[in-house]
Amino acid sequence: MAKKKMILDLDTGVDDALAIAYATAAPDVDLIGIVSSYGNNLIDVCAQNSLKLLELLGQTDVPVFKGLAHSSTTDHFDVMQVSLDIHGKNGIGEVQLPAPQRQVESQSGVDFYIEAAHKYGQDLIIVPTGPMTNLAAALKKDPEIAKLIGNVTFMGGALTVEGNVTGAAEANIHQDAEAANTVLSNPDLPLTMVGLDVTLRTLLTKRETQKWRDLGTAAGKAYADITDFYIDAYYNLDIDKNGCALHDPLAVGVSLDPSFVKTISLFMKVVHEGPNYGRTIGNNAKLNDPNPNVKVAVNVDKDRYLQTFMNYLTKLFSQH
Amino acid sequence: MAKKKMILDLDTGVDDALAIAYATAAPDVDLIGIVSSYGNNLIDVCAQNSLKLLELLGQTDVPVFKGLAHSSTTDHFDVMQVSLDIHGKNGIGEVQLPAPQRQVESQSGVDFYIEAAHKYGQDLIIVPTGPMTNLAAALKKDPEIAKLIGNVTFMGGALTVEGNVTGAAEANIHQDAEAANTVLSNPDLPLTMVGLDVTLRTLLTKRETQKWRDLGTAAGKAYADITDFYIDAYYNLDIDKNGCALHDPLAVGVSLDPSFVKTISLFMKVVHEGPNYGRTIGNNAKLNDPNPNVKVAVNVDKDRYLQTFMNYLTKLFSQH
Repeated sequence: MAKKKMILDLDTGVDDALAIAYATAAPDVDLIGIVSSYGNNLIDVCAQNSLKLLELLGQTDVPVFKGLAHSSTTDHFDVMQVSLDIHGKNGIGEVQLPAPQRQVESQSGVDFYIEAAHKYGQDLIIVPTGPMTNLAAALKKDPEIAKLIGNVTFMGGALTVEGNVTGAAEANIHQDAEAANTVLSNPDLPLTMVGLDVTLRTLLTKRETQKWRDLGTAAGKAYADITDFYIDAYYNLDIDKNGCALHDPLAVGVSLDPSFVKTISLFMKVVHEGPNYGRTIGNNAKLNDPNPNVKVAVNVDKDRYLQTFMNYLTKLFSQH
Repeated sequence: MAKKKMILDLDTGVDDALAIAYATAAPDVDLIGIVSSYGNNLIDVCAQNSLKLLELLGQTDVPVFKGLAHSSTTDHFDVMQVSLDIHGKNGIGEVQLPAPQRQVESQSGVDFYIEAAHKYGQDLIIVPTGPMTNLAAALKKDPEIAKLIGNVTFMGGALTVEGNVTGAAEANIHQDAEAANTVLSNPDLPLTMVGLDVTLRTLLTKRETQKWRDLGTAAGKAYADITDFYIDAYYNLDIDKNGCALHDPLAVGVSLDPSFVKTISLFMKVVHEGPNYGRTIGNNAKLNDPNPNVKVAVNVDKDRYLQTFMNYLTKLFSQH
């Protein structure tokens, strides 16, 4: 079987950094590119972080594309203070990595999406772990791609639990609820939602990161330091005292092995006005329609996932 | 195996009327009493409706108890106009039934709950299909009953779909969100939530009610007329053009045969302040705790349920 072609859409970010490592380490995937978004930091900082991390992991053949710099309904983007507190001012836990050799591609991330959808079709997996702005723009520019893309497995939303920005909204969706609604409510696009319902159950601790540090490699040390910053932030901000959530790398894992999660199938919508802005919820008007397009993860085999995550990343870091 | 002992807690109501018929017709249950609530109408109207319907079905040995007349946070209750529009001014679709021979019991519904919990323990099934006011009051008066009761299977709430009072809130929960929170957040009480997630998928049409009318019996004719009023209201108020939701009788069905629904397990809470008053949602603080106490129905085998529903009710109505 041909390897799946994967595009990550990242606002890199500590857990985005872990997603890059997971996608690099997984044996059954060909990471064909990273589209950069805004969110955990400004788009340019996020793009540079992706390039730096790819080089740290020896992945100099993976291109990084620049997406859109702000949401579909605003004309600029300011990083929220809480994002800087959680991910560090530079987005990767204040760890300093060498300036990247490779530069951001000149092709836009939106056009790269469209080109890849036509080129790879059902073999293409897209994993957005930030705002949906880029993918929504691609779907608007070329609606045909909805039927071509194999699967979109995104980190975002909250269906059975409360959000982390408001009671209703999770952070990625809250950045651009209109764009998220464009993506989720497209009945032709097969989606898997990896939201807070499952990512808040999947925690990493310093016991695991110490194993990476003990490898004595540059990647092992850097990833341990980056992730410890995040674990400390979770502790200090009282998000979770028992570890950090593996939001983004869980989405990558599920995109490759859906059996990590238990899902329910729904047509969904994203509320994009009023106090529940950013709520991801079933579309009551389509509750009895056949073939719902969204699989929502509602539980996770966290032990097996964590074991796979550690096997992949520890092996990868031992080599770099 | 001994038959399960069932208490219904009803604000009777058209679909409550169908719940009484289902509980009467099911072969594997002993309906030991109905506790009356407010909601679809005033508590006294609801109690009288339950007595009238029991007599129509020949169930003169089932006692009806009066619960609390208003929510735990108010000092009175006014019926909402939309309730009168959906259920008719008399609560049972403007159908006139003879005044009941039997009267409401002198024991309070709250005390009946407590007595039954101590008497029947794990054999006791409670099916509230209105506000949770009575059950919450019983749990406050005698907290020990939480560990005694076999199961509470309630119609109410919305987890994966929007509410029917607000985007966040379903009607039964919205009547008394504080009481609902008392019930749902009690970790010792085993609960099954049959909310809009599944009841809006389970529709009855006039094709089915005509079969009851064709039986030529008093019960068949009355139930057909009562239910047709409800189906018409669903159509005219644009709730659903394809039939009426079998909210309350689905909860009774699930309490006896949980395999009608697919469930997910959660610790839950009910939001009882702010714009999302009445929202039923997972309790993020307990997401990684073991043995969640609420099973939430998220999908339903509607064909098998509807077949069972029709088998039971048609046979029952043929005899009365």
